Amino acid sequence: MLERQNDLPRLELDYSKLFDSTGRGVIVAIAKDAQLGKELMVGYMDPQAFEYSLKTALAVFWSRSRKEYWLKGSGSGSWLDIKSWKKDCDGDVLLMEVSPNGPVCHEEGKYTCFD
Amino acid sequence: MLERQNDLPRLELDYSKLFDSTGRGVIVAIAKDAQLGKELMVGYMDPQAFEYSLKTALAVFWSRSRKEYWLKGSGSGSWLDIKSWKKDCDGDVLLMEVSPNGPVCHEEGKYTCFD
Repeated sequence: MLERQNDLPRLELDYSKLFDSTGRGVIVAIAKDAQLGKELMVGYMDPQAFEYSLKTALAVFWSRSRKEYWLKGSGSGSWLDIKSWKKDCDGDVLLMEVSPNGPVCHEEGKYTCFD
Repeated sequence: MLERQNDLPRLELDYSKLFDSTGRGVIVAIAKDAQLGKELMVGYMDPQAFEYSLKTALAVFWSRSRKEYWLKGSGSGSWLDIKSWKKDCDGDVLLMEVSPNGPVCHEEGKYTCFD
């Protein structure tokens, strides 16, 4: 289900050091609207969620509370197409520029979780 | 040292639910340049760090690795003046719009940790 082979953007990143410094194997992933520049939501990724995201160019998170992988939008249709991403200096935060396929927040169909 | 009484911006926020949903008492705090709209860094706050930040309108983080409070800029002079902030729908992420008093990243005096 998580395979996607069509028209993937080339997600460039120096993957070395990502996860290295966290000590827990989970990083913070910020999704920001690539066009509007607004922050949309924050999730978490372990190496497997990162791998899924890399493979599909869709944001896949690790739910710390439910202990499961979570393809954002799999229920709502509001996928986050990842256009580009970069890590921070410590390699424990990923900043993604995304194109959302619908309202991102589960609350009342809000555009962003920061409202 | 952390008191600051002069010309504080009024930091408005509905504090209820902040920290409630984390279960660990630590939230992610994103600092974003209020003028340029660029993400600068990500740190963590527990309720005490949040209280310090509220009191001083300067970003104070909780260092998870060093287990201590950390007034950003106390070494480098690159304070982060908090101009406004908002929380996300879950109350476990704080998005701060800040005015940095210098280069934010410890690496080679870089403007942002996302470079």
